[in-house]
Amino acid sequence: MSLNFCFIGAGNLATHLSKAFQNKGFGISQVYSRTRLSAMELGNTLSVNYVTSADEIDLNADIFFVALKDSAVDEVLSQINFGNKLIVHCSGSLPLSALNKYSENIGVFYPLQTFSKSRDVDFSELPIFIESNSIRNEELLFNLAREISNSVSVLNSEKRKTLHISAVFACNFVNYFYSIAADILKSKDIPFDVLKPLILETAKKVQEMHPEKAQTGPAVRFDENIINTHLQELNNFSDYQQLYKSISKSIFEHYKK
Amino acid sequence: MSLNFCFIGAGNLATHLSKAFQNKGFGISQVYSRTRLSAMELGNTLSVNYVTSADEIDLNADIFFVALKDSAVDEVLSQINFGNKLIVHCSGSLPLSALNKYSENIGVFYPLQTFSKSRDVDFSELPIFIESNSIRNEELLFNLAREISNSVSVLNSEKRKTLHISAVFACNFVNYFYSIAADILKSKDIPFDVLKPLILETAKKVQEMHPEKAQTGPAVRFDENIINTHLQELNNFSDYQQLYKSISKSIFEHYKK
Repeated sequence: MSLNFCFIGAGNLATHLSKAFQNKGFGISQVYSRTRLSAMELGNTLSVNYVTSADEIDLNADIFFVALKDSAVDEVLSQINFGNKLIVHCSGSLPLSALNKYSENIGVFYPLQTFSKSRDVDFSELPIFIESNSIRNEELLFNLAREISNSVSVLNSEKRKTLHISAVFACNFVNYFYSIAADILKSKDIPFDVLKPLILETAKKVQEMHPEKAQTGPAVRFDENIINTHLQELNNFSDYQQLYKSISKSIFEHYKK
Repeated sequence: MSLNFCFIGAGNLATHLSKAFQNKGFGISQVYSRTRLSAMELGNTLSVNYVTSADEIDLNADIFFVALKDSAVDEVLSQINFGNKLIVHCSGSLPLSALNKYSENIGVFYPLQTFSKSRDVDFSELPIFIESNSIRNEELLFNLAREISNSVSVLNSEKRKTLHISAVFACNFVNYFYSIAADILKSKDIPFDVLKPLILETAKKVQEMHPEKAQTGPAVRFDENIINTHLQELNNFSDYQQLYKSISKSIFEHYKK
């Protein structure tokens, strides 16, 4: 496939996805971001033209990848006349129909992963979920996704939203809890490093066993003594104390069934 | 070192720790558990004698490893006359002093890991935290721990408790979030498998970058639209909805500083 892509947005996702495409020989024609620094950084990384104003976007690209914060999509896209070009957003939460008013050819390309600019991502085993308004566009996006990943599925907007919620729990909230753990350790000058093998094993465990079976710890053992001692110890972290209490209660309720 | 250990308790931790010692050539003289099935299983696994009543415990062992639920420790140990034998508990939360009344030689041997019987554990990089009431016992336990792990530290009871709390967040609560994610996906017939690469990458990321820097997702972006859509979508999971709300709020408060 010889196709040229324009990236609208230059954040973590746009950075990794555009690089993955470029590595597979696809052309990136242009990068747009309202934030000059982001536009420049990604433009330079890819060695392509970057712009910061929507009216400078070159409409000759074959596909427009929209990798913006959901709430910015309408504001940016409403400034551009795409004609019938294929526009594809990369959001977990936004329905396909959010693009209806901008073109007759629309799609979704949702890679399920956590992206940080400074960390390389292996796309080959990364699940990508696609959706489109026509079989032809769906096939195009499916084949495109298969060029960078071995795990591609078609998924409708409703299910994608559910998937995104589950990812918030399994990734964003999980990472926040790593942060909380680091914070708590810091209060006693214990380095975060000591938790790394535990964190990795906890994630590896559920690659093979269902998390419901993998559950350990005081809450699932109904160990009220430990729970109460921990709550007392968290007196200086009232926010974390509340979370500890409500999650322990939720685990307790869940497993007593 | 030619030493014989008695294991008091036959749960997940006792199973893995006793096997790790046996694999390194240490003798396990006996296993005790109040639960016949657990005692039998571990006894058979190690090919050693197992007992289910405290008065059958053979006092000739060199070290007694106590791997019981914290709340069961006193009930079991008060039935045994250890003389001056070295008694070592494996709990994150229990202070060393909890063993004061049972012997003059006491210690703590706390491996920081999540153990499930069906899953093998590599002890070599697993952090073990030890504590004792004398330099001599501390050295003995330190050297013993070094036989099975490359990561051994001395840590006092107060810090160990903090470490245990952080592990509850970074492991037990994290695994529960994997469970919640699985539950949510199940409601739309999406297999848990799709989340596995994301879960693994989330854990791998913090092996190299601090979790505070690795944070992604709607809450840290203050994306109220997404958060509200997700909350609405979780109407059928009122428990998870509450957790979603309080954790998002906590992330928001944390990162706006």
